Amino acid sequence: MHLPIQSFQTFDIRFPTSLELDGSDAMNPDPDYSAAYVVLSDGECEGHGFAFTIGRGNDIQTAAIRALEPYVLGQDVSDLGAVYKQMVYDSQLRWLGPEKGVMHMAISAVVNALWDLKAKREGKPLWRLLAEMSPEELVDLVDFRYIGDELTPEEALEILRRAEPGRAERIEKLLETGYPAYTTSPGWLGYDDEKLRRLCKEALDDGFGQIKLKVGADLDDDIRRMRIAREVCGEGFPIAIDANQRWDVGAAIHWIKALSPYSPHWVEEPTSPDDVLGHATIARAIAPIPVATGEHVQNRVIFKQLLQTRAISYLQLDAARVAGVNENIAILLLAAKFGVPVCPHAGGVGLCELVQHLSMFDYVSVTGTMENRVIEYVDHLHEHFTDPVVVENGVYRAPVAPGFSAEMRPESIAAHVFPDGPVWRES
Amino acid sequence: MHLPIQSFQTFDIRFPTSLELDGSDAMNPDPDYSAAYVVLSDGECEGHGFAFTIGRGNDIQTAAIRALEPYVLGQDVSDLGAVYKQMVYDSQLRWLGPEKGVMHMAISAVVNALWDLKAKREGKPLWRLLAEMSPEELVDLVDFRYIGDELTPEEALEILRRAEPGRAERIEKLLETGYPAYTTSPGWLGYDDEKLRRLCKEALDDGFGQIKLKVGADLDDDIRRMRIAREVCGEGFPIAIDANQRWDVGAAIHWIKALSPYSPHWVEEPTSPDDVLGHATIARAIAPIPVATGEHVQNRVIFKQLLQTRAISYLQLDAARVAGVNENIAILLLAAKFGVPVCPHAGGVGLCELVQHLSMFDYVSVTGTMENRVIEYVDHLHEHFTDPVVVENGVYRAPVAPGFSAEMRPESIAAHVFPDGPVWRES
Repeated sequence: MHLPIQSFQTFDIRFPTSLELDGSDAMNPDPDYSAAYVVLSDGECEGHGFAFTIGRGNDIQTAAIRALEPYVLGQDVSDLGAVYKQMVYDSQLRWLGPEKGVMHMAISAVVNALWDLKAKREGKPLWRLLAEMSPEELVDLVDFRYIGDELTPEEALEILRRAEPGRAERIEKLLETGYPAYTTSPGWLGYDDEKLRRLCKEALDDGFGQIKLKVGADLDDDIRRMRIAREVCGEGFPIAIDANQRWDVGAAIHWIKALSPYSPHWVEEPTSPDDVLGHATIARAIAPIPVATGEHVQNRVIFKQLLQTRAISYLQLDAARVAGVNENIAILLLAAKFGVPVCPHAGGVGLCELVQHLSMFDYVSVTGTMENRVIEYVDHLHEHFTDPVVVENGVYRAPVAPGFSAEMRPESIAAHVFPDGPVWRES
Repeated sequence: MHLPIQSFQTFDIRFPTSLELDGSDAMNPDPDYSAAYVVLSDGECEGHGFAFTIGRGNDIQTAAIRALEPYVLGQDVSDLGAVYKQMVYDSQLRWLGPEKGVMHMAISAVVNALWDLKAKREGKPLWRLLAEMSPEELVDLVDFRYIGDELTPEEALEILRRAEPGRAERIEKLLETGYPAYTTSPGWLGYDDEKLRRLCKEALDDGFGQIKLKVGADLDDDIRRMRIAREVCGEGFPIAIDANQRWDVGAAIHWIKALSPYSPHWVEEPTSPDDVLGHATIARAIAPIPVATGEHVQNRVIFKQLLQTRAISYLQLDAARVAGVNENIAILLLAAKFGVPVCPHAGGVGLCELVQHLSMFDYVSVTGTMENRVIEYVDHLHEHFTDPVVVENGVYRAPVAPGFSAEMRPESIAAHVFPDGPVWRES
């Protein structure tokens, strides 16, 4: 059943998205969405995982994944709590972080690939595999180091035990109704007003209950774009805005106040993801407009402080920046303790595929609610996955295929390998 | 004068220090001190720079440095403020941080190599090159993004202008008296009591005014080692302790209180370098024992918050973890604004060589004082440098050779290249 891992392959996969200005925002004008990709095999099943990057440097990220091979290849990986901690605690590799940036994202790719493999072996989608684990098993997956002042194993157990009643009913409900999505597709900065208006209307027609606009490059443009979106969507419809770290604290407050007549549902990444106190200052100044962040938050220690200072009203975990499923369980538990809803970051390559599992696990086994929670949805690059997300009428359908939905089609991998795949040779 | 850069070479250099237990602490039991090393040439002079790592992963770090080649090779690099910001603002590479971990350390190596080259071209040691720049030139080197709420360019100018009178006298004084050092050599965890006692005595005999002990592996051992050091050094002699991030907040407070009868001069890295609020909580609980940190602080944004919360009484900048000289000027200015003394982290490979220049610049042109300030000194691996530090009677002598003292001997590079250099082929 738990065979040692027999192969460990990595791929530098890049999509030439900069040609279309999909994904353009105030900080990232020309991303080439990329995956530093790993495939593990135990001889029977494969596990797929990746770190998401936006182009240059994806080779470095791939090399960092390869550095973790000794923790996996030829190893018994049946205890995923133990394997995860061994990688994070490697004292020499830890120096390159600690627990942040390239090396930490590499751990996320490997940890997530191991979970993909485990879920396939057990014949379940990952969300259901997690949702059916006992509170004790889940707590064993978490590294409580540096968060013990806010969350002890005992408190984590208590949160999970409180959610045990009703798990079966919530699994049924999820399979029936899905999980609410919101769409960022209308809001990229590179689009003109007509395209914005058309895409807002399409989002409404498609049944989405929330949209998001990128902001932060030019205030007059943002006021005009926000007015257009508000006109199309109507009063009261949730329109979030996302500055992608463009501002300093003072500029953030100034800019958000200028947009406040259009009632942003939340303001995302107003400043540096490292600036906990800056986020808290902004949150106090712009209240009651809520602050959201997380896609660039490096680990559970920064999330802990964002929660301690009440800096964020929405926590936007990322599936592949912190150390994968295990660290995200810690983050879900911290958010639950502070009563802050988790609305994951997605988009990029395959991030929608991954985060749906985490939100669904949160609903079934951690918080027991979908209220005031949405998963980001961006409608590109899903065709490259063997089990792509299904978003209908503004909800993510619950995945039923075994695994973490992380597997890219072999022909997509072959076509987009950088720099020698046909897509890149031709460009 | 400002020729374009004509060559860009990288080397993965590692020293097998784990064999001797030099450098062993509570988190890093077996480091192989390493340098991801870069050599630039403009055809006349060379600039050397490096990121310090402790072994595994030095290849990844070296690859990250190579990714910056397009910003340097064939480029006019006469404006070091501009080149530094171009590298930090590369939107695709930024995704791998932002401004943290492997990619940020890579920028430090390249920025520092450019400064080494510039100082050699101008025939001055780096500290003196910086000390003789105008306040306006210095401010142009700084990226104020994300620190503008605490330090504006105008405030930075004011700090630097206030220090202008007396610069010439302070340069003379520095050349005459040097800058105070402290030594960590007695305190590594791998040493037995007899070696500790002997090395403490040697430190006193060598004229050091402060020593430091590694702690955090075992409390009873630490109490005994601290008692021995106190016996040898006498009441009132500054003995700092360093936990290298070993503790959670609660454990830190408990442990430090148990060691408080031996009056630690400061407590270094009590917990995660990311935990600003944790440091602040510890600082309040253990007062008046001061907290120090910095060697793993990823960038100026975290330092800003450590200062805002009064979490640290000593700021321990690192020459090669943040983005090199430029970001360290920002950090020196922030520390000056908050009145917190800077006592740099050193040791490793070549870090003593680098930080001496930053402290001496701070003395001449930023704070104008050496009071309550010391530079860490560890007595290994200096023999591999062409202009090694000179520490005599407990002070760093001011370097007089042109450059940043960053250049390793060619025969040392050749011998220690990993994995094909003779040192590694034989082991």
